[in-house]
Amino acid sequence: MLKVEHIGIAVKNLDQSIELFQKLLNSPCYKTEEVESEKVNTAFFRKGETKIELVASIPSTSGKDGQTDLGQTSGVIDKFIEKKGEGLHHIAFDVADIHAEMKRLVAEGFTLLNETPKKGADNKLVCFLHPKGTNGVLIELCQEI
Amino acid sequence: MLKVEHIGIAVKNLDQSIELFQKLLNSPCYKTEEVESEKVNTAFFRKGETKIELVASIPSTSGKDGQTDLGQTSGVIDKFIEKKGEGLHHIAFDVADIHAEMKRLVAEGFTLLNETPKKGADNKLVCFLHPKGTNGVLIELCQEI
Repeated sequence: MLKVEHIGIAVKNLDQSIELFQKLLNSPCYKTEEVESEKVNTAFFRKGETKIELVASIPSTSGKDGQTDLGQTSGVIDKFIEKKGEGLHHIAFDVADIHAEMKRLVAEGFTLLNETPKKGADNKLVCFLHPKGTNGVLIELCQEI
Repeated sequence: MLKVEHIGIAVKNLDQSIELFQKLLNSPCYKTEEVESEKVNTAFFRKGETKIELVASIPSTSGKDGQTDLGQTSGVIDKFIEKKGEGLHHIAFDVADIHAEMKRLVAEGFTLLNETPKKGADNKLVCFLHPKGTNGVLIELCQEI
């Protein structure tokens, strides 16, 4: 793990939160992106070498719950917010070789939420660790494609 | 706000979590520190320009609840864990001039938890923002003394 690539924050209303975080961080939101595989909309800010990623569930029209990269069902962010409220959701660490890091972590006893890297936001390969093994912190590994 | 100075993680047992995070981050804990004003014990790891700070309540012997820098009573981390479980607790941003940043944020409508900067961990002046105004995220401003 090289650095904190981004910090994910779960929000209900992305547009309102973009406005709020622009004031808070005194920085513009430089990108928004829909991540279909996760069924989320995201918005990014930069602070030094780390990004702040706001994440909101895409409103479901089908009501069908598909498995996502977070190892949970669709509407994962809304479900997180129902349980814990809006706020800090995950930390993502940049890794040089995601396959090697996944192998190292499994050997150390950690549990992966996806056994092979998936396509995440911001043109990355990503893998999540089960928060039960990491003091409740949802950890994402990510590698630039 | 210049960069993410550290990410605070609430834990129950500092020694066990230090061992866990050494494996997770593949980095040594380089410092532990008791912060009397907050009634917490802390442990630090580095990843790039950001630190990971594990925070645990100091077991109370008096049972007296004093006001702390987090704007809450003693045992603040244990109370957080009772409510939300172990996990991500706060983000701290480095600022060049904490007084100017506090003034800017109040003008933007944010609520400070302490009206004057306090002495925090790691030789910093710190100020927290009320999470009700920041999408549930406890934000710390910190300036190197």
